[in-house]
Amino acid sequence: MERNIDRMRKRMQRLGVGFRPHLKTSKCVEVSRRMMTSPAGPATVSTLKEAEYFFSHGVVDLLYAVGIAEGKLPHVLDLRARGADLKIVLDSVEMAQAVAAFSRERRHPLPVLIEIDCDGHRSGVLAESAELTEIGRVLHGTGALLSGVMTHAGSSYDCRSIDAIRAVAERERALTVRAAERVRAAGLPCPAVSVGSTPTATYAEHLTGVSEVRAGVFAFFDLVMAGIGVCAVDDIALSVLTTVIGHQRDKGWLITDAGWMAVSRDRGTAHQSVDQGYGAICDEAGTPIEGLIMSGANQEHGIVSHRSADPRATPMLPLGTRLRVLPNHACATGAQHDRYHVVAGAAPDISAVWPRINAW
Amino acid sequence: MERNIDRMRKRMQRLGVGFRPHLKTSKCVEVSRRMMTSPAGPATVSTLKEAEYFFSHGVVDLLYAVGIAEGKLPHVLDLRARGADLKIVLDSVEMAQAVAAFSRERRHPLPVLIEIDCDGHRSGVLAESAELTEIGRVLHGTGALLSGVMTHAGSSYDCRSIDAIRAVAERERALTVRAAERVRAAGLPCPAVSVGSTPTATYAEHLTGVSEVRAGVFAFFDLVMAGIGVCAVDDIALSVLTTVIGHQRDKGWLITDAGWMAVSRDRGTAHQSVDQGYGAICDEAGTPIEGLIMSGANQEHGIVSHRSADPRATPMLPLGTRLRVLPNHACATGAQHDRYHVVAGAAPDISAVWPRINAW
Repeated sequence: MERNIDRMRKRMQRLGVGFRPHLKTSKCVEVSRRMMTSPAGPATVSTLKEAEYFFSHGVVDLLYAVGIAEGKLPHVLDLRARGADLKIVLDSVEMAQAVAAFSRERRHPLPVLIEIDCDGHRSGVLAESAELTEIGRVLHGTGALLSGVMTHAGSSYDCRSIDAIRAVAERERALTVRAAERVRAAGLPCPAVSVGSTPTATYAEHLTGVSEVRAGVFAFFDLVMAGIGVCAVDDIALSVLTTVIGHQRDKGWLITDAGWMAVSRDRGTAHQSVDQGYGAICDEAGTPIEGLIMSGANQEHGIVSHRSADPRATPMLPLGTRLRVLPNHACATGAQHDRYHVVAGAAPDISAVWPRINAW
Repeated sequence: MERNIDRMRKRMQRLGVGFRPHLKTSKCVEVSRRMMTSPAGPATVSTLKEAEYFFSHGVVDLLYAVGIAEGKLPHVLDLRARGADLKIVLDSVEMAQAVAAFSRERRHPLPVLIEIDCDGHRSGVLAESAELTEIGRVLHGTGALLSGVMTHAGSSYDCRSIDAIRAVAERERALTVRAAERVRAAGLPCPAVSVGSTPTATYAEHLTGVSEVRAGVFAFFDLVMAGIGVCAVDDIALSVLTTVIGHQRDKGWLITDAGWMAVSRDRGTAHQSVDQGYGAICDEAGTPIEGLIMSGANQEHGIVSHRSADPRATPMLPLGTRLRVLPNHACATGAQHDRYHVVAGAAPDISAVWPRINAW
């Protein structure tokens, strides 16, 4: 984890951009302090509960990167009144009007970034749309604070090559910078130009015009990231420790006590060139066991077998053997747990226990 | 929920069997007290953390229905020493020897049920296997307490018709009773004959020879259960409340603030005749909106659209509209939350907040 974080932070320095790590993967202040460039941020969160939690641990500069709903504005204002520099995101004239009206009424200008759609995968307005500048005009000088534009190239997770990621990264950059230029050309301020995803942050060739990058899963990495070439399997810093509790010899199955509850239902590698089932299997020291995957999952039972499905290919490891499951998706697997057990390298000794938060 | 529980409990009474509800779906003492036939149990749990939690709330008669690992025996003994009548499960001679040795050493006979494999979906020994009686002999009179046999017909979740469920239920019953007969014929005790899954408990035609039934998801039900005909959609008692936060009109998408973190990554209906995406959409009162499903999920964003994928078929509900997502799999969706907000019927008012536990 420390190596992953160090690599990403150095990369951001080399590219000459600010770094606003996304804290939604770990939801843990111990991990997050190691990711951020200062204990006060900048940082990105995906829920207001995360904002509350990290603010209570001294993180001040926060971006809530999910489109705001009107019903959440009083909570946002309350956090700001207590000292959090919390910024929000929206992508419609209608929501901009609601935020401007709320800001006027409460006499507190809420800082807003306009979300740009750079790849059609989720939310946002198009960089060339009339709505972009219209939203800017509704926000600026009417009570709210127009703070910039932001996007997330979520489609980078579906890339099949490094070249494809580089192309997505350049489109993410170019469209967001273009959006900022259009906002400025309309006579409006646009200080923040915020982009990011772990794949595009890892492979962007330059970030001219961008003010800051957001990325999150890079601290832990996972099999989906390894599958698209963003990390090596050995970089994956999160695993689920489990114990062999049974054998089904005829089928070549090891039964373990980690089911989908422990690793999540995420099957993100199902459509990649190597389907890792519910996770790849390592020994307790974290060394992958060639060919072994978690091929099936009940709530508290895992089925571990050889990816060839040849029953003779699975080593019938003794009952009590401890294994580690590398996750498809670190955000999803982390969310099934309430704490992290920290180990240094391959050592089995737990050097710390770090709590995390969940839910809303 | 109350109707679902009432129906199942009456059914168990009619069938003349004991009822040991599985508490792993809700992990909530308020729900569980309504499921159990007495505040002290019987009940089934899937982790020792559940055993601790429910025991701390007065549930004494507990079955931990996941194959035991040797490393967990001290915890089991500790719970028993504090007064929990906690029973464990195993399916190998090797583990039986370990439990017998531990029982002798600690001078405390641990009660054990032998797990039977009735459908090849997971763990257990075959009813006709030599290993079954061998395990019985290793346990009985050697320190441990041979308490019976148990199985779980997990394959019932994959049935495509009520007739198929009835057939799985009869095989579950017949093989488990057969296993009990073989144990008894070997001169060994076999008081408990424990079977169950929500589908087989719902459709078993008789349970001759069975002493108790285990079932769990029936309290909440979900779309997977509705898809195989075990409940109606209107019986589903769990939903995730979400808010419309954006529109992508060209695509016919409503963007909501409930992503996979809120509904889980479970796609259990993907292989059923009706694929419900990440969940079926209702209005705030819980009435399904014809054709609307949660077709996509990011961590904290949901995409809601018409199942036809015709962009014009999705009603562009206003920003701020509150919707309910019915889950594919109640166990998985519940686990993403730390509490339940209880509503009476279609009323939007929250009449209670019930906490739940998670993790291990």
